[in-house]
Amino acid sequence: MNYPLLGTPKDSLDTPALCIDLPRFEANVDAAAALCRQHGVAWRPHAKCHKSPDVARRVVEAGAIGLTCAKLGEAEVFAAAGVSDLLIANYVVGPAKISRLVALAQKADPIICLDHLDQAEPISQAMVAAGQRVRAVIEIDLGMERAGVPPTAALPLARRLAALPGLRLVGIMGYEGHLLLVEDQREKAARIAEALGQLVATKERMLAAGLDCSIVSCGGTGSFPFAVAQPGITEVQAGGVIFMDAFYRHRCHIAGFEYALTLLTTVVGRPAPDRAIIDAGRKTMNIELHAPLVRHRPDIVVDRLSAEHGCLKLAPTAQDLKVGDRLELIPGYGDFTTVLHNCFYVLQHDRLVDIWPLAARGKLA
Amino acid sequence: MNYPLLGTPKDSLDTPALCIDLPRFEANVDAAAALCRQHGVAWRPHAKCHKSPDVARRVVEAGAIGLTCAKLGEAEVFAAAGVSDLLIANYVVGPAKISRLVALAQKADPIICLDHLDQAEPISQAMVAAGQRVRAVIEIDLGMERAGVPPTAALPLARRLAALPGLRLVGIMGYEGHLLLVEDQREKAARIAEALGQLVATKERMLAAGLDCSIVSCGGTGSFPFAVAQPGITEVQAGGVIFMDAFYRHRCHIAGFEYALTLLTTVVGRPAPDRAIIDAGRKTMNIELHAPLVRHRPDIVVDRLSAEHGCLKLAPTAQDLKVGDRLELIPGYGDFTTVLHNCFYVLQHDRLVDIWPLAARGKLA
Repeated sequence: MNYPLLGTPKDSLDTPALCIDLPRFEANVDAAAALCRQHGVAWRPHAKCHKSPDVARRVVEAGAIGLTCAKLGEAEVFAAAGVSDLLIANYVVGPAKISRLVALAQKADPIICLDHLDQAEPISQAMVAAGQRVRAVIEIDLGMERAGVPPTAALPLARRLAALPGLRLVGIMGYEGHLLLVEDQREKAARIAEALGQLVATKERMLAAGLDCSIVSCGGTGSFPFAVAQPGITEVQAGGVIFMDAFYRHRCHIAGFEYALTLLTTVVGRPAPDRAIIDAGRKTMNIELHAPLVRHRPDIVVDRLSAEHGCLKLAPTAQDLKVGDRLELIPGYGDFTTVLHNCFYVLQHDRLVDIWPLAARGKLA
Repeated sequence: MNYPLLGTPKDSLDTPALCIDLPRFEANVDAAAALCRQHGVAWRPHAKCHKSPDVARRVVEAGAIGLTCAKLGEAEVFAAAGVSDLLIANYVVGPAKISRLVALAQKADPIICLDHLDQAEPISQAMVAAGQRVRAVIEIDLGMERAGVPPTAALPLARRLAALPGLRLVGIMGYEGHLLLVEDQREKAARIAEALGQLVATKERMLAAGLDCSIVSCGGTGSFPFAVAQPGITEVQAGGVIFMDAFYRHRCHIAGFEYALTLLTTVVGRPAPDRAIIDAGRKTMNIELHAPLVRHRPDIVVDRLSAEHGCLKLAPTAQDLKVGDRLELIPGYGDFTTVLHNCFYVLQHDRLVDIWPLAARGKLA
């Protein structure tokens, strides 16, 4: 399979094709950057949702201070693409990775994330041996009960990390991920404020103890409008907001951003009057967090997905759908959809204007 | 990140790493081929579970007659790797794909799958225009209510397909996928026999009508032992059996095959006495169909997965687990795990002996 020529009309792209609508994408990027500026908060959007150096360059041009990465391997890709200020929001453990981190710190300025002395000591030793220091933040558990130290345990750890010669402790991070789906929006705001308030209180304790806490990082897409408004935080990580999806809009109730990521599909089977089969299944998109939506067709529902078959349920008004008809889907959850693809097809005025590889896809280590 | 050198010990591979244990893999391949031979049934294993030309060559060397593919793009990769007899168990629709199918038919001998005249006619026309014919099978719905025609509707469609000059109708296929999880094994056997009996009855009607039905294809990994025993079928598609996984063993109760696919991970966080964090989440493995298992450690349970964090629940006997410790996981569902990776690390006697790229990964069109 060859790549399609630039200029190809959307309707002629082979399917399934994961598409970015460039004007809607740029509007989202600008809106996210503006919202952060308005609140005086820096934007360090997570790159795990796109894995694309092309997207990275555009968010940095729009004012992002750098990127958040989920893995060291992602940070390596973005450093090679020229982004220096990279927060690795996960733990770097083991001799192979520590060697890679030392190499990365020679060409970029990463920030590592820690919640345990056992992660920190080998890194500090390796950095000292290489004549380097690496910036570090402590992860605080804000109630998600995944990783991180409780707010009350941060100060003792901070003191020990600050004493390690290969590290430069610069702040803290937390993630309010357990609050994204609080349905009542006033309750959601209150609970996020309470959780992030613990993060900011931790910062105050660190500052009072004479420790550096110039970075207070938090804020995913599903809590973005609440996180930016929190006094005392310094940066937000919301990344998926550049694409938007059904999960963020309908389950997290995030407004003000457009559906910029879509999946072109073709109807390949019509086995029953109320059922159609499309050429996209669970190896092409994600259905667990929210079913994909059919753009402009509320009378067509994505009912279930096999590996490479998608079953659509058709209302009576949609039963004239034929083999060969094309549909545009809005991903249920963009983040778990993008990583199944090798590239984004970038569209403007319904024509292909660029192809952006997901260069960091599969960089799991 | 560079690839590790061949000869690297398993314990030194950077993680997460998706590994194939070569002796266990070869034992599974041999056992699957032998089971088919014993029943006088051909083996056409599905390639969607591995996407790897290296795996493809090994199953063909072990006696597979060819491969089943989920997408035209996969078939193109395997044709380029030298496999000719390729069943595309999905529908090929749209001008771009039909052009590609014509090209594929010039260098391989694919079989397409059809359940509607609207799929068939454009393909027949294109094949005639190119001076070619392509083999075709009709998909029969055995009760899964996904794609395919009901058994009773097969004959009229078969007659019309047989009249299309660009096609050569050679048989039928069906998938008993709705019966994989029938818990009682005697009931499972009976229901699969009943479903596949409808497939074989369809063949009898086609033969009686003077139509070719030399291929009767069915049989996924979750029903493999029952499918091979069905009189009248000619080939089975079971592919995941070469790897085995927790879903097939514990939910489908498939015995006689070893866990050949594992995922090496590292403990990167110890936030609570009974909780550990590993460097693998939902972008590295799949948890929906069955949780991954921790090899040789029944006292450690994969509790939940975020995108790139895995949360383990530790029994009291496992609470000495430290940051940096390594664990080997058995995928919950191999098929949705493999496609998240760029390559398999092939191990023998716990040393790296080969690296097999998933060359057909992301070939979704």
